[in-house]
Parts: sequence; structure tokens; C-alpha cells
Amino acid sequence: MEVHPLVTDEIVRRALLEDLGHGHDITSSALVPAGHRGQAVMRARHEGIVAGANIARAAFMMAGPELVVDIVVHDGATVRAGQDIMMISGPARGILTGERTALNFISHMSGIATQTRRYVEAVKGTKAAIVCTRKTAPGLRAVQKYAVRAGGGRNHRFGLDDGLLIKDNHIALAGGVREAVARARAMAGHMVRIEVECDTLAQLEEALACGIDAVLLDNMAPDMLRQGVEMAAGRAVTEASGRINLETVRAVAETGVDLISIGALTHSVTILDIGLDVDF
Amino acid sequence: MEVHPLVTDEIVRRALLEDLGHGHDITSSALVPAGHRGQAVMRARHEGIVAGANIARAAFMMAGPELVVDIVVHDGATVRAGQDIMMISGPARGILTGERTALNFISHMSGIATQTRRYVEAVKGTKAAIVCTRKTAPGLRAVQKYAVRAGGGRNHRFGLDDGLLIKDNHIALAGGVREAVARARAMAGHMVRIEVECDTLAQLEEALACGIDAVLLDNMAPDMLRQGVEMAAGRAVTEASGRINLETVRAVAETGVDLISIGALTHSVTILDIGLDVDF
Amino acid sequence: MEVHPLVTDEIVRRALLEDLGHGHDITSSALVPAGHRGQAVMRARHEGIVAGANIARAAFMMAGPELVVDIVVHDGATVRAGQDIMMISGPARGILTGERTALNFISHMSGIATQTRRYVEAVKGTKAAIVCTRKTAPGLRAVQKYAVRAGGGRNHRFGLDDGLLIKDNHIALAGGVREAVARARAMAGHMVRIEVECDTLAQLEEALACGIDAVLLDNMAPDMLRQGVEMAAGRAVTEASGRINLETVRAVAETGVDLISIGALTHSVTILDIGLDVDF
Amino acid sequence: MEVHPLVTDEIVRRALLEDLGHGHDITSSALVPAGHRGQAVMRARHEGIVAGANIARAAFMMAGPELVVDIVVHDGATVRAGQDIMMISGPARGILTGERTALNFISHMSGIATQTRRYVEAVKGTKAAIVCTRKTAPGLRAVQKYAVRAGGGRNHRFGLDDGLLIKDNHIALAGGVREAVARARAMAGHMVRIEVECDTLAQLEEALACGIDAVLLDNMAPDMLRQGVEMAAGRAVTEASGRINLETVRAVAETGVDLISIGALTHSVTILDIGLDVDF
Amino acid sequence: MEVHPLVTDEIVRRALLEDLGHGHDITSSALVPAGHRGQAVMRARHEGIVAGANIARAAFMMAGPELVVDIVVHDGATVRAGQDIMMISGPARGILTGERTALNFISHMSGIATQTRRYVEAVKGTKAAIVCTRKTAPGLRAVQKYAVRAGGGRNHRFGLDDGLLIKDNHIALAGGVREAVARARAMAGHMVRIEVECDTLAQLEEALACGIDAVLLDNMAPDMLRQGVEMAAGRAVTEASGRINLETVRAVAETGVDLISIGALTHSVTILDIGLDVDF
Amino acid sequence: MEVHPLVTDEIVRRALLEDLGHGHDITSSALVPAGHRGQAVMRARHEGIVAGANIARAAFMMAGPELVVDIVVHDGATVRAGQDIMMISGPARGILTGERTALNFISHMSGIATQTRRYVEAVKGTKAAIVCTRKTAPGLRAVQKYAVRAGGGRNHRFGLDDGLLIKDNHIALAGGVREAVARARAMAGHMVRIEVECDTLAQLEEALACGIDAVLLDNMAPDMLRQGVEMAAGRAVTEASGRINLETVRAVAETGVDLISIGALTHSVTILDIGLDVDF
Repeated sequence: MEVHPLVTDEIVRRALLEDLGHGHDITSSALVPAGHRGQAVMRARHEGIVAGANIARAAFMMAGPELVVDIVVHDGATVRAGQDIMMISGPARGILTGERTALNFISHMSGIATQTRRYVEAVKGTKAAIVCTRKTAPGLRAVQKYAVRAGGGRNHRFGLDDGLLIKDNHIALAGGVREAVARARAMAGHMVRIEVECDTLAQLEEALACGIDAVLLDNMAPDMLRQGVEMAAGRAVTEASGRINLETVRAVAETGVDLISIGALTHSVTILDIGLDVDF
Repeated sequence: MEVHPLVTDEIVRRALLEDLGHGHDITSSALVPAGHRGQAVMRARHEGIVAGANIARAAFMMAGPELVVDIVVHDGATVRAGQDIMMISGPARGILTGERTALNFISHMSGIATQTRRYVEAVKGTKAAIVCTRKTAPGLRAVQKYAVRAGGGRNHRFGLDDGLLIKDNHIALAGGVREAVARARAMAGHMVRIEVECDTLAQLEEALACGIDAVLLDNMAPDMLRQGVEMAAGRAVTEASGRINLETVRAVAETGVDLISIGALTHSVTILDIGLDVDF
Repeated sequence: MEVHPLVTDEIVRRALLEDLGHGHDITSSALVPAGHRGQAVMRARHEGIVAGANIARAAFMMAGPELVVDIVVHDGATVRAGQDIMMISGPARGILTGERTALNFISHMSGIATQTRRYVEAVKGTKAAIVCTRKTAPGLRAVQKYAVRAGGGRNHRFGLDDGLLIKDNHIALAGGVREAVARARAMAGHMVRIEVECDTLAQLEEALACGIDAVLLDNMAPDMLRQGVEMAAGRAVTEASGRINLETVRAVAETGVDLISIGALTHSVTILDIGLDVDF
Repeated sequence: MEVHPLVTDEIVRRALLEDLGHGHDITSSALVPAGHRGQAVMRARHEGIVAGANIARAAFMMAGPELVVDIVVHDGATVRAGQDIMMISGPARGILTGERTALNFISHMSGIATQTRRYVEAVKGTKAAIVCTRKTAPGLRAVQKYAVRAGGGRNHRFGLDDGLLIKDNHIALAGGVREAVARARAMAGHMVRIEVECDTLAQLEEALACGIDAVLLDNMAPDMLRQGVEMAAGRAVTEASGRINLETVRAVAETGVDLISIGALTHSVTILDIGLDVDF
Repeated sequence: MEVHPLVTDEIVRRALLEDLGHGHDITSSALVPAGHRGQAVMRARHEGIVAGANIARAAFMMAGPELVVDIVVHDGATVRAGQDIMMISGPARGILTGERTALNFISHMSGIATQTRRYVEAVKGTKAAIVCTRKTAPGLRAVQKYAVRAGGGRNHRFGLDDGLLIKDNHIALAGGVREAVARARAMAGHMVRIEVECDTLAQLEEALACGIDAVLLDNMAPDMLRQGVEMAAGRAVTEASGRINLETVRAVAETGVDLISIGALTHSVTILDIGLDVDF
Repeated sequence: MEVHPLVTDEIVRRALLEDLGHGHDITSSALVPAGHRGQAVMRARHEGIVAGANIARAAFMMAGPELVVDIVVHDGATVRAGQDIMMISGPARGILTGERTALNFISHMSGIATQTRRYVEAVKGTKAAIVCTRKTAPGLRAVQKYAVRAGGGRNHRFGLDDGLLIKDNHIALAGGVREAVARARAMAGHMVRIEVECDTLAQLEEALACGIDAVLLDNMAPDMLRQGVEMAAGRAVTEASGRINLETVRAVAETGVDLISIGALTHSVTILDIGLDVDF
């Protein structure tokens, strides 16, 4: 499920303009003859999962409309250290102007996909899916969430307009879970799901009684979580959250929970090291 | 040196619109009475350096124009775990609508400032400054580079238009360092500095002979780097780069180099954990 | 659930710029002295339901930042012919410059709310809710859907990203309902609901067997619809669609269907006649 | 006189983005294989006048850049129920993603053209032209006014910058028709025409004496209108306005008036029913 | 007739962003303490006509929202060398950040107004008005045309959508003046005027016979022009054009022509020298 | 060093939209048959230096995407009166719609290049380069500065973010040159140069002692300037500024100064007369 180019092209354009500043790549203009052509290979320097190859290609093609870009390793595939990801050929200035922006996108997105895959592998064999959150780098949510999918994860809400997530403040304001859910159901369209955050099993019981779609079991220890999952069985999708990391995720998954949400997938990204070797 | 609000307001607006999607915060609309007022405290959950407080405030005020936001800990200051950073009061819906966007900015930017400060501390007592690169999250360069400054670091180039950095490809294309620098100087304005990337001491000698402003000593071991720094003494600013980390940075700094550039400051950010406690 | 001003302000701004063209209201500039102040009353010329009062106010205030606008009848309320909706006072030029844009919004949106209310009244006492579709005037979806809510209706999907609606083509492509739903569930997040369009009761049976959230019973006669509703009871939300009008909607509602979607609410709008009486 | 693509492409882009929301067509992504190709036929479901075929094509081509679109019935032509308007072939996902936006434009615009044509037919044989107003759907004025032309109507002012229309308030403010026209003429460029709204024949006489270009005879009964037209003969263009409908327009036209303006052409649009039949 | 702030604010914003580049005024940030306040006076360094004072004020207020700006000499008034135009007080950084943009607007616009006034003075006592053209600096047409008005001139067409100007190519394409005017009248709305460019008196006679609104007498010597004006008397507005300058304009005006269009008013602007004296 | 098309395309698009206003070229639509093809030649009417040929081509191609444009004389070359600059062929409407915008760009930019070349010629044989300033037409800085380069000049700062220029106010605020330079150096990145404005030789001496990169010798008479240049020899780049014109520039250059900045190159532009001859 790629993000539509109408959306990503605008994000790429903004990134290139940010790099062009007052409008030129002065180093390339000064040092690379206008007609000079060359080729470049984008290569992984570490093993990982590729995400953002199409977006890197878009960056090159906006930087140099005459460039030809061939993607060798597609999004979602594993790339080994030293393996080629894409070939770029055409005017050398275009390659150099697009280089940094293309790399910034693909290394960021591949970093997300790679880390997501680690979590997905860690819970293999359980029924748990790995899910990202709204804790994203501002302006990059669509491409970050896409990278999570490329890594084998799934997406939680895309925004405030997209599903109702009832937290303790909302419950307090509404005067109880039952009332909160009733108001939510009265307001939300029939295509919108409702999830309730529960910190205790008592809250969970109350929420389940309201017929909601999903429960967010926040910061529960594995034992309590397992109980919660059993209580919810067949009544609501269960999601675990709260500072879960690669060390702890397996234990969480083995409670039988449906979803495990990991904010760090998008809020604390380590890039996948990807470089460009040019041959001019 | 804050980024001008004309620039940051647009970045904040884009982030809020990304979260609002089709235009509403359905949970707040459904569950929070329109006139309900409340207050919230933004608190650090770990110790670190704050950056982005003004931007978080801007996010709240765009989300809810009637909100009043008081910043307690300003950018560049250290915050301890549990310490308040800012107070927000006014319509509860506005607080909840702005919450995630405000936190996404300040936790990302404070993460950068905090990590930068660690590097700055690590080189304390040497003459080396810590510098960031153009390896930034697309669309966020201005605010990321600001966060580096808040952490005590300095900025390298902001974009392709901003200083000439001559790399090996450029040198090869131009037919040697001398020719490359000559072309660069002929093209660049007098306010533009020229830096040459050198992988060997021979290249460095050649570059220094051309009267350039700065040399980027890439991937040199400390001993070689020290030699390079001595060769350049009084002739050019020296910059070390190449996978330097918190463990190795001190040794690099002790070579006497002027600048140490760390791509990871902006390309691989771990957020500072900051949360919002509401009281509605 | 108002649309957030960050979204509507942009729609209003675009409408004013469209009216200002090359940049001025030449009639007001020529004929109204710069300092002249006045007041105006916006009045309904027919009975109906008001929607868009806040947006009309925003239009006046962008046209003339010094204007003071007091809304008397708020969105969702009934207004009688001749009744005042809002008062505007301040510089006469601002009132005249904003007049047409303000009226275009409020009369269009109130027209939608008024017609929606007629449908809502027509099905009173049944369990059916009136729902709008994605058949909207391009660029105005958010405000049109808001107007439907102001009239007492509810919203179906806001866009292609917002709920999965599986139609016959999708089913054919996927090779059957079962496979289509499986793929949909595999791809969609847990907060996304899935609805399947069914033209026959056989299709309906197959869809219900897949455990989907909602069924769209398209173009079914009341008897068949009633059967469909009974089959779906307790298993999925039921939605009727297909050229239903004010004459036929009651019979459809009495089948026990949950939702009745009416494209005409937003694709074929008759304005509520609202005018401005100025007193300069 | 088509609207320039620089203007319409932006309107189409905005409409597609509105439908894409957070960036994807989740149903097509989930259910239509990426490489799957197909074709579709856009067909009228009722007889009418086509308008917006080029804009619908633009919508398909932005939604799926590889699509090939052949227009069979062009703007301004009559289409019968069941007749093909355009063929679309290429990637199935692109067709489905563009479908709703393309239909929303063409059915809205063709609805306007069809209704305009009815008025034009109703006054056939008289000298009256049918004219639209500034009562348009916000953001869609350029395409709505184009649709009026496609239907055989003509356009009044496009905006506040485009011709001077002096109404009673302006006259009152200026202290009389003579003074108002003098000020208008002094301010307006020589390419700008001046029209004066007249509610009585006395006002008309006064306006004609000032040498204005056109008179708007508002809400006059046919007899009075006929008198007005005779008075204005050879001195000014005459325009009738004021709640004229398909039943009354002929009588108005037979008074000999030059123009009849009908706000409902653009403010209260009933779409022409147009659908898409896909063959994947 | 000021340009509406919705239009000019966007032009000012773009100019400030162009000057801010990557987002900061590094000199002011480095050298002016954040809290430092001061005042500045904008002064004319030559005598001329002021235009753009409001726009300069807008530039200061966007650069520094806390600034207070008092305009002393308003648009259209004469300012002597050394005379104050406006006072600015508040945070020193804001004044310095806005200075160049504010001066660039007001000195450019005042240069236009000043030159326009010279032409207007040169034709004093004749009936000729001085008119500008579409030969404008790209992106600045609205503010340039406003400056012409501030200098006492008038505006010709604002754009291609704004009046029909039939040139020799059009006539050739249409197969004669008569046919060209017929087509133009058939297409254009009743509020649109038609002007025909004539190079010879024969063409003029033909154009006048068609009942057009205005004639553009291009590159005619004064004697021929006088004849043309006499021929057109009472039948069409007459406009002279073609490399008319301050030396020749009087003779042209004395032919009795209504309008004299001068492209150089906007295409070749000499600024009025205006400076800022700060007192920090 | 051309400005990147991502930047210029937006400037061209804005200019075309400004000319299209409400969206159409009514004269071409009315008078030129839709399918009619033709060709046109853009010709210089005076001798000068061409700049902006690519931008004019972009304007034609956005106005009429089917147009074919061949540039004969490229930017930076001399064109004689009557010489062809580019050929345009294709749909006649596209040529006419793009004509004015294309000419406005190329005649403005060529005017700048031509004037710049005069200054460059005037100082031939000296070591002085001709430099432009930030006194530019708002919104056009990037293309104006490019035109200066096409004429053989060089560019000073592009914006406030681009080099530090310390003026007397800054020095006063900082409490002396030494302190100002120290603060500037502490704040600015190592790729940023620092220039200090000096009105007296005493100031110059002080500035040179601080090791700054460049000195702006403002409004100094040639003798004093010569002394300043000698003092600065080998210590800083020297720049002369202050109302230097074509008569005085030679004497200034002969003082041995490195750079002479001329605000009038961009703030007071006389176009190069370029026209379009069409053959339809």
C-alpha cells in the first residue's frame, strides 16, 4: 500500500527545496561541466530492509528530470551490506543535486523498516502484529507509516480524524467508560472503530461490557496482560503498549495479545546506512 | 539563533494538518464538551536538554487559539526527569488536539539537543566544536539544526547553496585539486567559503597549497588526523568526519581538530521522553 | 464536531481570493469612503436549518479584519423566514467585500443541513440514520459533511483512506467475497472497518459469513431489503443505498436498516435563501 | 473558452488530495493487484449536456499517470442516457482512485450545463442571453462559469475586480446615481464597464442619463420590465434578475431584455447522473 | 483602491522568506541581544511620491510581530528629501530583519508612483490620462499597478482575462476587423470591453464601424494621431501607445487622445531612494 | 550557475497565474481557433546581453504544453538589434497566452545582464569584480542574481542567512568592532564569512585587526579607498559601495579594490527591448 505520488511528490519537492535554499547547488555548478554525464549506484552499507526506493527515485528525477533510475531491490526486500539498491544514470549535476535528499529519505525509511522487521521477527509464531503510533517526525507521517508496513508492521491511526481512541482523561470528562463510549458511538460514523485505553482489569471489564472494538492495555506486566487478553477474547481486539522494546516484546506477544504498538518505530529512528558511489 | 516564525509556523501548520487529516479530532469532539476548560503540564520523563519549546507552544496555539502557554524551561537548558517544561491552559479540546504535535516536535528536538550536549561534554577542554551535517529528516532541517545549536553544537552547511564542499568526485571531474579550487573560487561569491574533503595527507597538502578555507579530514585514524591538523595549522579550519561516536569522539578531539561532524545527531534521533499531564 | 479552523480558514481564504481576482473590490473602492462604517444583518429568506455560521463569520473577518460579527442563530438550529442569523458591524468596505463569499458558504451549507433534516424527519421513529457519501463538490467535502452533521445526518467515509468499501469489481478481481475480505483484513489497520456492497441476498450471506463490519445493500426493493436486514441482524451494520428520495426514504427506513445513504445531500444542493441587509 | 489547465489542474489536485486524505486508497491497494490493468467507460445515465470532460480526464491522469483517456463526447454536446462519454484504460488502481473525483467534477459541471441549456432553449427566438452570477460554490467559480458557457449561457462578472456593479447601497452612500456613476467612472479603468441596479423606472431614467453601460432591472414584473427595456433601448445593455425560473423565464425574455441572470445555475446545482462501468 | 491585504500579505510573506532563506537573520541573531528594543525612521533621500507604505508596514510586522509602525506620509503624497515616511519601534531584531524587504517594496513602488506623477504633470491641462500596461515585473503586477494609481495614473488591463484587446494577429486570423469584433462580442460577457489596435487610419475607420469600445492607436505620429482622435470622437475611447517618453508625451496628449499608455512605468523602474535610520 | 527549475518553475507559474487572473485568455479564446498552429520568433530590438532564455521557454511551455521552443542565443551571449533569440512553434493560443509573461521575464533579466556587462566592461583590466546586493525586486531575487551572473557580475549575499555583514549599528550595539566580530564568529558556522562595514580608515584598521574575511568600504572617495585597499592588502577582501555609477566605477576600480557593489543593477532595472513576431 504505497502512498500516492500526489502526496509523496510534495514531500520530496519540499525536501529538495530545503536543500537548494536560495536556488542552486553551488558546488556542482562550479565543478561539474553542464553536459557531463555519469552513473551512480546506491548501495546498502549494512544489512536491512529497504523502504523508500520509489521516493528516492522521485528525488533524483525531480533534481534532474533527465535521469534514468532503475530500482534493483524493492521496498520490503532484504538487502545485504554491499548490495546494490538502485542505479542512476544521466547528467552528473542532477545526480549530485539529488544525492543527499534521496539518501536522506531511503536511509530514514529503511531504518524504520529494518527495525520494524526486527520486532516482527521477535514475535514470529505468535499471533501478535507490530503496530506504529502517531509519535512520528512532523511532516513525515505518511512515509514513516509506509516504511513500517514495508518492514512487515501495521499501522494504527493515521491521525486524529481516523478512529476514536478513548483515554483516561476522556473517560473522566465523560463521567465513566459507559458514557464515554455512548457519546463516541453517537458521534462517530459507522466506519469508525472505537478503542478504549485501560490501565486496570476493572477498567477493561467495564470497557468490554460496552461493546467497543478494541482495547489498549497500557503498561501492563505480562501476567496481567495475559489475563486481560483472556477477558477480551472474542469481544475486542487487544493491543499492548507502553515502553515495550526488543528484549521484552516476545514475552508480551506470548500473552496472546493481537497488537503490540511501539512508538519508537517512528519517533526514534536509526537510519540504515546507505551510500552512493558515483562514477563520473 | 532561533529559526524565524515565518518559517517554523509553516512547518507546525503542516504537522497539525497532517494529524487533522480530513479536518477533525473526532475523539475530542465526541467526548470533550465544547466549553470545557482545563490545564496541562508538559513534563520531562528523562533528564535532557530542552529544544523546541517555542515550537511546541506554537503548535498548541494553532490547535487552540485561545490557549495560554507558559514556558518554564527554555531551549538550551537542562531539564531533570519529572521537571515541568511548560504549562498550558484553556479550552480542553485545543489542548488535546495540539498535544501529539507539540510533543512530537519538542521530544524530537530535545532528543537532538540532548545527544548533541553529550558530544559537547565529551570533548570539553579541547578546542573541538561538534557540528551537524546535511543528513537530516526531510522537511525538518531548519528545526533540527536549531536543536543542535540548542545542545551546544554548531551547524555545517544548511544546503547546497551554502558553502562549497569539494569531494573526490569533484576533484576527479575537475582534473585535480588545484583546478577544482580555482573553478570554485571563480564561481563562488566572496562570502562563500570553500572546504575540500581529503582522504590522505598528500591530498591535504595539495589542498592547503590552494589556499582553501577548510579541510574535511574524512575517516582518518587519530594519528593521521593529528598529523593533518598540524599540517593545516594556521592555514585552514580542520574538520574530522566519518562514523565518529561517543566512545571515539574524545580521541578525535584531542588531535587538535577544530570541528567534528556527526551525521547521527540529526539522521538517527532518539527522542527525549516528554509527556503531558492534563487536569481537566 | 466542527471542522478545525486550520482547515476551513484555508477554504475560506481561497474563496475570497477567487472573488478578489486581481486583488480588489473595485465597486466598494470606488463608491464607499475608506473610513465609512456601517452594520449589516444576515437574514434567512426561507425557513431552514443553519449551517456554516462560523465559516461565514470567518469570511467577513478575513475580508475586513476590523469587523465585529455576532452570531445569533448557531449551526444546527432552525431559522424562520425573516429571522436574523448574524450581525456584522464595522468598516463598510469590509462588509461588502466579504458579503458574497460569506453568503455563498452559509446558503450552500444551510441548504445541505435543511435537506438533511427533511430526511431525518422523514425517518423519525425508525432506527435508521441518514448518511452522506463521497459524492461531494470538489474541494468542499469537509464543509459539506459538516453541514450534513448540522442537519442531523451522519457521515460515511471521508475519503479513500478512511474505511474499506468492497464493491463488485473488487470482489471479481479478488476472486470472491471471502478472498476479498481476507485481503482487506490483512492490509487494513485494526481501526479500519470493512463494508461489502451486496446486490443480492446470496452475496449478502457470503459477506456475512466473512465477519465483515457492515453491508451496503444497494438498490434493493423494500421487501428484499427487509430480508437482508433480518439476515444481517447482530452480525453487521446494514446500509441501504441507491436513488432513495424523500418520497421513498420512509419505506426504506421501516425495513429496519441501520443507515440510509443519500448522495444527493451533497451532490445536488439547493441553497437555503439567505440575504444580507446593510445599513450604511 | 476553456479555463487554462494551470488553474484547473490545481483545483483537480486539491480534490484528489481531499479524497486521498492521509495518502492512500486503501480499498484499491488491498484488493487490486499492483500490475492489474483494465478499462472503464464513463456513461451518462440521463440525457444532458456534457461539461468537464477535460477536467475528468485530468483527474484520471493525476490519479494514475499511465492511464489513457479518450473523450468521445466533448463539452457542450448533448449526451443521451446510456451513451459513452469517455473511455479510460490502464492500471486498474489508477482508474479506481480517480473514479469518484472525475465523476464528481463531470456530473456537477454537466448538471450546470444541462440546466443552463434548458433556460437557453426556453428563451429561444428572443434576443435574451442567459447569464450566471457570483453565487457560486466556493472554490469552484472558474469551472462552474465554464460549465454555464458549455451549456450555451454567458458569464456575468467573475469577481469583485471585474466590472463595476452599483447597487442601492452604493447609490445611497454616494448620494445619488449621478454622483455614484461619476465616482465609478473616475476610478475604473477604461476597459471596465459599469452597470447600475435599478428597482424603479425613475431610478432607471436617472441611471440612463449618466451614460452607464448596463442596467440591472431587479425584480420587475414583465410589464414594467418591458417599459424599462424600451427606455433603455440603444442606451444601455439591459439585464433582468430576481428569482426567475424555468416557468417564468420566457415571459421575461419576451420583454426584449438583453440578459437574464439566474443565480440558481451555479448556486443550486442538480448533477447530471453519470457513472463509470469498469471492466477489469 | 488598495490591493486587498489577502493578496499583498502573501507577496510580502514570499519576499521575507526569500530573504530569510534557510530561516534566520544570522547577523541580527549574533549581534543584537534578544530583548533589545529600539526605533527607526524611514526617510526619503530624494523627493518623490510615496507608494507602498502599508506594504512596508506589513513587512515590518511580519518580520517582528511586536513592532509598532506609524505611517506619517501616506501613499500618493509627495515627500521631500529628508522627510520622514514612517516610524518603527520595538524589538531591534525585528526591525533589522524586516528592513531590507520593507525598503525594497516601498522604494520600488514609490519609484513607480514618482515617475507616473511626472507623466501626469507633463500632460496637465489636457484630457489625457496616463495608463500602465501588462509589461510588469513577474509576480508584482498588483502592487505595481497600485503604485501607478498612487502616482495619479490609471490602469489598463490587469490580465488576459480582463478586457479584450484585439491586435493585428487576431485580425489576420479572424479574417478582418469586422469578423474579429463579431467573434469577440459573441464570446465576451457584457461587462467586458473590447479594444482594437490600429496602425493606420483605414484600420481605425473599419474598427470604429464595428462599434467597439476603445481603439489603441499604436506608434502614430502626432498629426496622424490627431486625425485618428477626431475620427473616433464620440465613438470610442482613444489610446495612444508606442515608445512615448517624458519628452514626447505632451505632444501626444495635445492631440486630444483619452489615454496614453506607458510600458516603462512598470517595466523599467528606477527606485525612489528611501533609507532607514535606526536608533538602538 | 542556473537557478534550479524547481525554484524557477514556481516563479514562472505564479507569473502566468497572475496574468490569467480568473483563468482565461479571453482574447485568444475568442479569436484564435482552438486547433490553429503557428510560429513565432522572439527578437531583440536593441543590442544587449541575453538572460532568462530558459525561463522564457518555461513560460511558453507552461502556457502551452505542446509548444516547441528552440533557443538560438543563450544566456550570457550578446544579441544585436534584430537578432533572433528563440523560435516558438505550435498551437497559436499557447504562444499568445505565454507571450507577455515570457517577454516580461527575458526583457527584465536581459536588462540586468546588459547593464551588468556595461559595468564589467568599464572596469576591464582592473582586478575589480562587479557585485549585486540584496536590493532586489521582491520575489525575484534568485532570477535577478542569476541575470547579474549572466552579465559577468558576481553575487553578494543571497539573504539574511547567508554570510554575516556587520554594520555600524551592530558595532554600536555590541560595543565595538572587536566584540562584534567575536560574537559573530562564536555564532556563525565555519562555512560563513564575516564582512565588516567601515566608514573610516580607523574603523578599517580595527576591523582588520580582528581577522575578518572582508571589509565593505562605504562611500569612500577614491583616494581614501586606495589607502583602505592598501591597508587591507592580504588581510581581507575589499569591497567598495555607495552610489557608484557607470561614470565613476572606473576610478573606483583603479584603487585596486576587489569588489564593487552596485545596488542599481537589480533595484533599478531598464529592460532590454525584446519583442515577439508571430506568424500564424
